[in-house]
Formats: sequence, C-alpha cells, structure tokens
Amino acid sequence: MKKIISVLVENHFGVLTHVSGLFSARGFNIDSLAVGETEDPTISRMTIVADGDEKTLEQVKKQLNRLIDVVKVIDLTDEDFVDRELVLVKARIGSKNRSEILQIADTFQAKIDDVKKDTAVIEVTGDQNKIKSFMEIMKPFGVIEIVRTGRIAMGRK
Amino acid sequence: MKKIISVLVENHFGVLTHVSGLFSARGFNIDSLAVGETEDPTISRMTIVADGDEKTLEQVKKQLNRLIDVVKVIDLTDEDFVDRELVLVKARIGSKNRSEILQIADTFQAKIDDVKKDTAVIEVTGDQNKIKSFMEIMKPFGVIEIVRTGRIAMGRK
Repeated sequence: MKKIISVLVENHFGVLTHVSGLFSARGFNIDSLAVGETEDPTISRMTIVADGDEKTLEQVKKQLNRLIDVVKVIDLTDEDFVDRELVLVKARIGSKNRSEILQIADTFQAKIDDVKKDTAVIEVTGDQNKIKSFMEIMKPFGVIEIVRTGRIAMGRK
Repeated sequence: MKKIISVLVENHFGVLTHVSGLFSARGFNIDSLAVGETEDPTISRMTIVADGDEKTLEQVKKQLNRLIDVVKVIDLTDEDFVDRELVLVKARIGSKNRSEILQIADTFQAKIDDVKKDTAVIEVTGDQNKIKSFMEIMKPFGVIEIVRTGRIAMGRK
C-alpha cells in the first residue's frame, strides 16, 4: 500500500540524503519526493510517497525520529488529507487539434503556460485521479515531455 | 546563484540517495527537490534547485553522468524555461476576513481546496515571484501551515 509521510527537517547539508537513505536501506522504493520550504526558513518539509509494509514503515519512522535534523514525522496515510500534485506536459499541438486540446485543458482547469508553433506547455494540478485522467486523455495527442512535482499533502484538521 | 538541474534517473532503490548525496558531499545546499514519474514508468525525473558556484556544479554534473542509474543531466539554469511550484496554505479564516481572503485567492487564480469553521486550505501555483507575492499577502491573516512541492521546470524548446 502507498504510504504518505511528511517529514519536517532542519535545512542542513545532507539531511535529504540521510532521510531518503533510511527508506532505501529498508527496501522502500520512493515513488515521489517533494521537498520545499516551510513557514520557518530554517525548516524544510519532505513529502514522501513510498510503497512498503506497515511493520517496516514503523521501523523507518522510529529511525527518522532518532535523527537530530528531523524535527517531526507525520504519517498521513490513514489521516484525512488534501493531496495535490502539479504536472507540466509538453504536447504536440497543431491547427487540427488546437481547439480540442484547449477545450480539454479548460475542462481540467489546466493552464497553458507556453505555446510554440507546434507545441504547448500545459500545467495541470489535482489529486492523483485527476492527474491520471488528464494524462490518459492527452496521450493520443502526442506527449513530448512530462515533469511532475510528486505529491504533497496536508491534513484537513 | 541558484542552479536548476533536471536529472533523469532509473527507478531503482537508493538512486535518490546517491544523487542528493553527490550534491551535499560538494557542499551544495539543496533548496528544493521534486521527484516524480515521467512518460516512461521506469524513469523518474528529479528537479533540483541548489545554491553553489559554477565550477563545483560542473564537477557534480560530471559525477552524476558517471552514475549508472543516471540517464540524463540537464542544466536549465541558463536556458529558457517555464518553472512552476504548487503550494498548499492553511490559513485562519473567519467571518471578518472571509470575503477578503476569497478575493485574494481569486486574484491569484488560487483554488480553495478545503474549508473548515475557522480554517481554509488554499492551493496556489505559479513561478517564484507569484508564490512569493501570495505568501506575503497571506501572512497577516495568520498562516498555520505551508506545504510546497519545490520548483519544477521545463525547457521551452
């Protein structure tokens, strides 16, 4: 089952390496990882989505809590949370399919970030279901490149 | 100067650790890191924003290219690119400031993802200037929590 873990860490050299290393040492494959600033500039938040069993995850969480640079570990897996991801998609676009692609983008509340003669960069955000649907609909048009942020999540409480 | 590097890696255990380790070993502090799937499910893309000098970065890039699990290293720093970040902001919201906050959200094309009696989760995307302006405007309202994806970037070419 996919686990979603939020780890608050001090902004020091090598903390990311340490934290991601704990997951890989236990055989967890990290599906996505997003690291960004928080309300406190000395603290970063890592949002990790990984696949693995409950028991091993408990061990990883214990080890994380022991690291000096780890401030807090929050396991959101069973919580009520909002999760979002941002995806940039570079698609082939031409006179034949332009209006159709723009209509799809509109339906998904996606934004067109850049348009060239035969390509467009489209920005879409949403939960995993929405992103998946968008990607499936875009595929037949010819997707040249995809850049994803990985999921972030925030507890609703 | 902030460097922005895109690294395509094989989806193997420990690759993230390896890559982030190369940056921290050279004294680069990673500002943000976003790792997500690509159009090929066996390949992930890491977008790294780090602070450091040109010479050291060249060394890091060389070392990255030597790693078996690294497919491609793209230095976007001096390229023409679209960059975006997604931020979730949990803000205090009450009857007094509700309409003002909703108006700000509207101006920034931000979405309201969740509303409770006295809090709201707002989702905003944009480049670093837009995110910074939004955060500054929201601050006086009382920001409880922030989760950021870190920047992702895509070359316009």
